[in-house]
Amino acid sequence: MRCVSLIIIAGLMAGTCAAEGPRARDLGVPFEGKPGALNTITDVAGVTVGHVTLIEDLADGRKVRTGVTAILPRGSATKNSPVFGAWFPLNGNGEMTGTAWIDESGYLEGPIMLTNTHSVGVVRDAVIAWRVRAGGPDKSGYWWSLPVVTETDDSYLNDMNGFHVRPVHAAQALDAAATGAVAEGNVGGGTGMICHEFKCGIGTASRRVTVGGVAYLVGVLVQANYGIRDTLRIAGVPVGQQLRDHRIYADPALARDSGSIIVVVATDAPLLPHQLKRIASRPALGLGRMGSFAGNGSGDFFVAFSTANAQASGGAAPATVTMLGNDALDPLFEATVQATEESIVNALVAARDMQGRDGHYVNALPHAELVSLLKQYGRFVKPAAPR
Amino acid sequence: MRCVSLIIIAGLMAGTCAAEGPRARDLGVPFEGKPGALNTITDVAGVTVGHVTLIEDLADGRKVRTGVTAILPRGSATKNSPVFGAWFPLNGNGEMTGTAWIDESGYLEGPIMLTNTHSVGVVRDAVIAWRVRAGGPDKSGYWWSLPVVTETDDSYLNDMNGFHVRPVHAAQALDAAATGAVAEGNVGGGTGMICHEFKCGIGTASRRVTVGGVAYLVGVLVQANYGIRDTLRIAGVPVGQQLRDHRIYADPALARDSGSIIVVVATDAPLLPHQLKRIASRPALGLGRMGSFAGNGSGDFFVAFSTANAQASGGAAPATVTMLGNDALDPLFEATVQATEESIVNALVAARDMQGRDGHYVNALPHAELVSLLKQYGRFVKPAAPR
Amino acid sequence: MRCVSLIIIAGLMAGTCAAEGPRARDLGVPFEGKPGALNTITDVAGVTVGHVTLIEDLADGRKVRTGVTAILPRGSATKNSPVFGAWFPLNGNGEMTGTAWIDESGYLEGPIMLTNTHSVGVVRDAVIAWRVRAGGPDKSGYWWSLPVVTETDDSYLNDMNGFHVRPVHAAQALDAAATGAVAEGNVGGGTGMICHEFKCGIGTASRRVTVGGVAYLVGVLVQANYGIRDTLRIAGVPVGQQLRDHRIYADPALARDSGSIIVVVATDAPLLPHQLKRIASRPALGLGRMGSFAGNGSGDFFVAFSTANAQASGGAAPATVTMLGNDALDPLFEATVQATEESIVNALVAARDMQGRDGHYVNALPHAELVSLLKQYGRFVKPAAPR
Amino acid sequence: MRCVSLIIIAGLMAGTCAAEGPRARDLGVPFEGKPGALNTITDVAGVTVGHVTLIEDLADGRKVRTGVTAILPRGSATKNSPVFGAWFPLNGNGEMTGTAWIDESGYLEGPIMLTNTHSVGVVRDAVIAWRVRAGGPDKSGYWWSLPVVTETDDSYLNDMNGFHVRPVHAAQALDAAATGAVAEGNVGGGTGMICHEFKCGIGTASRRVTVGGVAYLVGVLVQANYGIRDTLRIAGVPVGQQLRDHRIYADPALARDSGSIIVVVATDAPLLPHQLKRIASRPALGLGRMGSFAGNGSGDFFVAFSTANAQASGGAAPATVTMLGNDALDPLFEATVQATEESIVNALVAARDMQGRDGHYVNALPHAELVSLLKQYGRFVKPAAPR
Repeated sequence: MRCVSLIIIAGLMAGTCAAEGPRARDLGVPFEGKPGALNTITDVAGVTVGHVTLIEDLADGRKVRTGVTAILPRGSATKNSPVFGAWFPLNGNGEMTGTAWIDESGYLEGPIMLTNTHSVGVVRDAVIAWRVRAGGPDKSGYWWSLPVVTETDDSYLNDMNGFHVRPVHAAQALDAAATGAVAEGNVGGGTGMICHEFKCGIGTASRRVTVGGVAYLVGVLVQANYGIRDTLRIAGVPVGQQLRDHRIYADPALARDSGSIIVVVATDAPLLPHQLKRIASRPALGLGRMGSFAGNGSGDFFVAFSTANAQASGGAAPATVTMLGNDALDPLFEATVQATEESIVNALVAARDMQGRDGHYVNALPHAELVSLLKQYGRFVKPAAPR
Repeated sequence: MRCVSLIIIAGLMAGTCAAEGPRARDLGVPFEGKPGALNTITDVAGVTVGHVTLIEDLADGRKVRTGVTAILPRGSATKNSPVFGAWFPLNGNGEMTGTAWIDESGYLEGPIMLTNTHSVGVVRDAVIAWRVRAGGPDKSGYWWSLPVVTETDDSYLNDMNGFHVRPVHAAQALDAAATGAVAEGNVGGGTGMICHEFKCGIGTASRRVTVGGVAYLVGVLVQANYGIRDTLRIAGVPVGQQLRDHRIYADPALARDSGSIIVVVATDAPLLPHQLKRIASRPALGLGRMGSFAGNGSGDFFVAFSTANAQASGGAAPATVTMLGNDALDPLFEATVQATEESIVNALVAARDMQGRDGHYVNALPHAELVSLLKQYGRFVKPAAPR
Repeated sequence: MRCVSLIIIAGLMAGTCAAEGPRARDLGVPFEGKPGALNTITDVAGVTVGHVTLIEDLADGRKVRTGVTAILPRGSATKNSPVFGAWFPLNGNGEMTGTAWIDESGYLEGPIMLTNTHSVGVVRDAVIAWRVRAGGPDKSGYWWSLPVVTETDDSYLNDMNGFHVRPVHAAQALDAAATGAVAEGNVGGGTGMICHEFKCGIGTASRRVTVGGVAYLVGVLVQANYGIRDTLRIAGVPVGQQLRDHRIYADPALARDSGSIIVVVATDAPLLPHQLKRIASRPALGLGRMGSFAGNGSGDFFVAFSTANAQASGGAAPATVTMLGNDALDPLFEATVQATEESIVNALVAARDMQGRDGHYVNALPHAELVSLLKQYGRFVKPAAPR
Repeated sequence: MRCVSLIIIAGLMAGTCAAEGPRARDLGVPFEGKPGALNTITDVAGVTVGHVTLIEDLADGRKVRTGVTAILPRGSATKNSPVFGAWFPLNGNGEMTGTAWIDESGYLEGPIMLTNTHSVGVVRDAVIAWRVRAGGPDKSGYWWSLPVVTETDDSYLNDMNGFHVRPVHAAQALDAAATGAVAEGNVGGGTGMICHEFKCGIGTASRRVTVGGVAYLVGVLVQANYGIRDTLRIAGVPVGQQLRDHRIYADPALARDSGSIIVVVATDAPLLPHQLKRIASRPALGLGRMGSFAGNGSGDFFVAFSTANAQASGGAAPATVTMLGNDALDPLFEATVQATEESIVNALVAARDMQGRDGHYVNALPHAELVSLLKQYGRFVKPAAPR
């Protein structure tokens, strides 16, 4: 697996990758649909992902457990070539900058950046500065002046009020972005995140679909940090009601869905902005499958883009673009739901136990117990041989 | 069970009720949360529901399989007293009139009417005419001038282009509206509807929740007409993949989610319009649990209202209203998801086989097979003794 | 001037046109921008407009002062070929059916119908029935199942609770739709309408613009029924404060903006749905120029469509469409504002005094006084010689 | 006049105020409605405004022409007490952070910050940090975690890519916020802004209205940076077509509306969030009066809040709040339009010539010529004697 994650531990930047482990389907979780080659968002050609992971125990006792993830729709070509895009807020308790211009323009003109709630600003301005330094046709950074930066809240584990994310970290995530394998779990923006009271973070998945005889890919990446234990369903199995140890909220009556989830959907299908808006709402149905009720405290933001129509930036002369008919979109809608569901389970499976600030400790989803429950409820599927 | 459905068969209006049968939890389907007294939308005090069911084989061979359902938020007091309300379109392939004014005013000023796609207009004007005839303080019908009428498409079974719904049917549904038991399945606006390629129609359920030590009710009613067979999940069990007989689309590759679903959410919790907008989006998560991906052809419209704040119509002098804090809404969000899920399963369970136009025949969900699958997947819950 | 208005007076349908008179610029009102050949919405090639005007004093004393206007984006080809479209509600106290599907699909799949508030339903279903009768590729009427019908309230002059619009009138308006000159003032859906306490109704105008060296047209048609006297500005002249006779509200403190205005914008510029959404919001700025503050009682709905991309209905194979860049849209935005402003003034200038129900009488804007005020405020522009 | 502006020139913070001069109505510009005591947003009791103005010619030749403006809805009590709020984007080419949570929650939980486009991020995080340092009941800054920061683009005069706004400047603006007089023109976030190709910046105005016998105030503050010369209308006079010197775009065909305008509306009238959403759209009509067409390059963002209902933060027990009826809102809508119009003219009148980067020089609106045009067009109103 190629490394796409920089880990900065105790102030040293290490070139190593996150530890590898099984993914959800390696444990026997059944999913619908056919995944792409790597079952990652980077299966959509051109999409690159970069993580910077900040894990450090400071001398004064503060715990840094955070990071930045960068997603570039066209890889390095993103600097000069926008994609059609759209977004959808299922519950707006969070921040995603740049959304008014996505709605208005129909374009996503730069990367999507994921970090913690209190570091959205520093990452935002750093994206502009990075673009200015990169120079080229838009050296003023005009087209990147309204960056898309979004967040979930890692303050249970991370010293979020220490503002440990610096402009250099945003730049490192942009520079590190690559095609190929994507690290999952406690990495990048997902470093300190928690789902259904289990350790969580970044997850990804993809689906192949066919429309009118043509193959397309749908890729999803989530930064998952939502949900209470009781409602967790995996493949329809009431996992949360069966695995009741190591909850954050000892009293379920006090449990609050105070996290958030960001879902990024990429596709190479030629969709117009208003069609991507439709795609952008479908992760809600994937969240439904997981048992979410989109609690008040959750910022559930979904963003979708299409890498087709590379020359679509438009101008005074009419540009030519292609689009699928609305009647042809069902396979893409279904793939979005499926890949969202799998991405969340992948984030849960990839994450590892973490100790953070004030003695807070969050356990990962125990793999053996998950497998046992899948068998008990008739949902275990024997994994394919390793690739 | 009190009769709340008029059935007009072969031109004769019969005072009989729809045949009674088991509901979903009578078959052992497990659900989360605590239902209200009747497990219906009418558990929310004041809410009334009326059905007019039109089933007739005309002499010229045309088949009438349609109807009208009326929901009055404050029963007969709805004539002069609005409720705070909001709506949310998950997928807009359908019609719901009156929504611009709901968004703008924060009020639902009359009933919610459910019928077939091609009869929205006749029902709309008939609601105004009914209000004008009713007289009283607003005898001009000014406050009811923008009625909320919505629809799903019953053209697979019903002669929808025959325009068989007449103004009198809308008036009958309004006149028939009552508290108490609510007929489910092939009744009212749901008469000719289909879910996941099984016969479907009207379903309802409710939940009791406690916020700040105070008990509230959330009631849901659906007119369900959406979905393809493959994706149907009930209580997490992949029912659609196991019950493959009697599908409408023999070839799954051709199956299209071309129906729609209307979800009406009522509560007595004191919520402001922008909070009801939040409630109105949560049925999406209930649909997710059922396996929906909100297909292109589906009009998935959700509407929510609060029966609290009866004197909230406002005026030049400031009116006093009450509201829960946003932080207190999680139990209401969760109840909405749960009651949506159960309402859909109730609609599937209550519906009966129907023959319609052009020899089309739609089978109901077979109860015995459902029970068998619940047991196979470890999800069967022994029903409580009958009430 | 070709006749595009059927007038039904005292039950007889007359083939005559509305009386002709000067338009706003014939009186010396200055406007910005260059109009099209006829200065009408029909300057946009393919767009047709049909009016049915219902003016009748019934034997029982009821006064009928209403009608229906039909706008077909592609004329008769509208039956089988949609246009890209979008809508925008500045203030939602009104009805426009079909909007959820416009938002979702990006298409306007049939005509835009204008009538009075209580006749939206009858016109809606009649549009479907008309399409079904027309037969052809979509003889089931599937693509026209969600018609766009909108309204303003003519109840000050018209017996609106008499429900005098019949399905046949909707059909007649559709059948009558033609290219060429468009009757203005007391015609069609605008028959009984009132602006700024002057008689008003239908108005239209157009603008020629150049983008990237290519000429495009923007056409506007309004059904105008909004505003109080005091705020009326024409070409910046405070006309409403100077012409204080014949107000409906003798006491300005009681004056209420209880009408509405519908603005339809057509263009042949190749715009995508999200770009048409932008166009659809610009009539707000034209209303601002007239002095409107978008009162609570006003349904201010704007709809825009592009006649370009005739083959854009899409399908499973990618369709090719063209689009202007966002940076090139300013001339179209400005033209929309200008043509909205002129359309409203044209409606005021074309309307004639009308007596209606309960002795209500509404005066038209007096032309001589308008000319005098334009001169007094240095805004009179000598009209061009008649065409 | 109390000083509410810190000016930092050449690195020295000066305690002086911006130079005072006439306001629009001192020059004889006619406006409708009755202003509050100071004709500023701070006429709404409790609202405070603070400016930090950065004007510096750096040794390396770079020109700093920017700043920060802070608006606190409840003054220092804003730290612990939110207001009901809403926002509206007329054209989304800009950034306003925090809007998803305004939409979802109905609250504005902290200040509104105005700055330049490339400094939104630094100001955003600095607001959180300032709140954390302030301590008290919410010392974690949880309720201020999603700050509202918005911008317009001053890059024609300011070295925007120098990122000269620092966290300390945001803190200084928050600390400097005060009731009383508000500096206008080249101050705070408005320092380097331009309207209709004249120097522009901050402007403010207010209106008194009476609803149901009770007096309310509406206050507006704008950061104005939009528009091309040709379309400028002041009090209906075509000023832009008459004053053609010193344009930025010598060729009108190349003139682009590439700025933006932020409009902040405050009121003490008791309005619920969905009603504030309605208020928030009305500045569009004020912009219409000025001749704007909301160009593609313009971020036209409006935000409204109500200082009533101080204890409305809500909780598990129902809170009691008051609201006006929708039917009573017309005076507030009209006041919003009027105060927006006057605020923009005030910004134009207060601004002074400025030299900026790369030799760019922008002239202010010449007062004498404005007075002369008002007289020529019959719109001059003799100013009241000075207060």
